[in-house]
Amino acid sequence: MADVAEERRIVVAVDEGDESMYALTWCLKNFVSPNTENTFILLYVRPPPPIFNSLDGTGYLFAEDVVVSMEKYSQDLAESVMEKAKNIYKNFDNVKVEKKVGLGDARDVICEMVVKLGADVLVIGTHSYGFIKRTLLGSVSDYCARNAKCPVLIVKR
Amino acid sequence: MADVAEERRIVVAVDEGDESMYALTWCLKNFVSPNTENTFILLYVRPPPPIFNSLDGTGYLFAEDVVVSMEKYSQDLAESVMEKAKNIYKNFDNVKVEKKVGLGDARDVICEMVVKLGADVLVIGTHSYGFIKRTLLGSVSDYCARNAKCPVLIVKR
Repeated sequence: MADVAEERRIVVAVDEGDESMYALTWCLKNFVSPNTENTFILLYVRPPPPIFNSLDGTGYLFAEDVVVSMEKYSQDLAESVMEKAKNIYKNFDNVKVEKKVGLGDARDVICEMVVKLGADVLVIGTHSYGFIKRTLLGSVSDYCARNAKCPVLIVKR
Repeated sequence: MADVAEERRIVVAVDEGDESMYALTWCLKNFVSPNTENTFILLYVRPPPPIFNSLDGTGYLFAEDVVVSMEKYSQDLAESVMEKAKNIYKNFDNVKVEKKVGLGDARDVICEMVVKLGADVLVIGTHSYGFIKRTLLGSVSDYCARNAKCPVLIVKR
């Protein structure tokens, strides 16, 4: 048999949506091979904290305690997503899991991280938005499919 | 261990480009699992034959022998692509291969065929066109990633 990959680093982009948990499940069922060391790297990207100073054009200023509580909320969200993921991957053997939390625009962070993490494949769930909503919101999966420097598996529900 | 897929139907879109052969190779190395029955379905889509009649606005008419020879060329191309693919997959065990040739616009045919063939995943290579070229030419992989009714694996060189 021709050489088959013996170690794989599979980056799975996770977020609050059920789509990403479905993508993780699909991937665990379909990408795990007993003869291969599979490292699943769960990547959650937090949006950057809002930073406004008094020179900000809007003249709008977040009180420090509001910023702190938003920051706390964002951290809690990251933890809850990882917990949700754990309830899925704990049922599978032969799987090593690493967790990474990035900060910034999800599209850019994911594309940078796949390079840094040496990903063999990026797995990403996708929302079934229609044309208008996708055009307005942009799509993380569309962007990553075009720009990530590794194969990209897009899992739709 | 949670239930792992035991039979998988993997549709690989193949064409004349090296990108699709690279996608097939990547997939054979990364998607084949010894405990799973993997059926790779190679799907090649031929463009529709040009049909002009005397009422055609351009007033342009293909002689019948030209149409026949274009048709023959298109069939030969399909065979040569399948032959190229064979040189790749023959090196892998535990792989069942089926070949399908479709006719029409590649984007539509691929999306229809994944449903008809009961694909578990669609694998598609991609050209690394820039923004302008992609916008002008359209991209089969972009279209399929959005519209195919199954997970889509986009393999970039």
